[in-house]
Amino acid sequence: MIAKTPEPPYYSVIFTTESKTAADAAAQQDYADTAMRMVELAMAQEGFLGIETVYDAQGNEIAVSYWRDEASIQQWRKQAEHKLAQQRGREDWYQRYSVRVAQVQRAYQWARGE
Amino acid sequence: MIAKTPEPPYYSVIFTTESKTAADAAAQQDYADTAMRMVELAMAQEGFLGIETVYDAQGNEIAVSYWRDEASIQQWRKQAEHKLAQQRGREDWYQRYSVRVAQVQRAYQWARGE
Repeated sequence: MIAKTPEPPYYSVIFTTESKTAADAAAQQDYADTAMRMVELAMAQEGFLGIETVYDAQGNEIAVSYWRDEASIQQWRKQAEHKLAQQRGREDWYQRYSVRVAQVQRAYQWARGE
Repeated sequence: MIAKTPEPPYYSVIFTTESKTAADAAAQQDYADTAMRMVELAMAQEGFLGIETVYDAQGNEIAVSYWRDEASIQQWRKQAEHKLAQQRGREDWYQRYSVRVAQVQRAYQWARGE
């Protein structure tokens, strides 16, 4: 689940959402399916480096995707199927969300036994 | 849960963890208590702007904290009780983690009905 990214600098998109579907299992499943499809699509996108995502039991989510440069982020933002998913998010899934674009300047990882 | 942050630029620390405590409810509770205490401590720290955090059912977590500048991040990293918690994390809680320091350059939010 932790993304293997190259040495900085590179870019991150920090996407934080509050769900409005907590009590609606069908909507949550629909959201999970769409989110998985978006990860597939993003992986095929030029400049994509990785993604980390965590959902809680209420359907709230933080997804951080990593990109080579700002141009890659712009292209992904405008990708047609992704735009439709964003629209559905605002209509059906989200109570509130935040998007932050940030340049990763330093990074380190730790793993048990390494 | 979405942090109210000022206009960019400011800094983010993207902390992503894989838990080793999935099957251990007591360890998970212990972790949750410590994490809550760390949020309290961070809030009292000079330069702290906000934090967003999501845990899943397996205890994996993404926590993104926001800071005025790099100096604030360095001070927080070295805060004594926080250092002890980091040590406990490596001993008792984490299988793997990643820390990325990133400068937030653009940000926008959306909220239903606004």
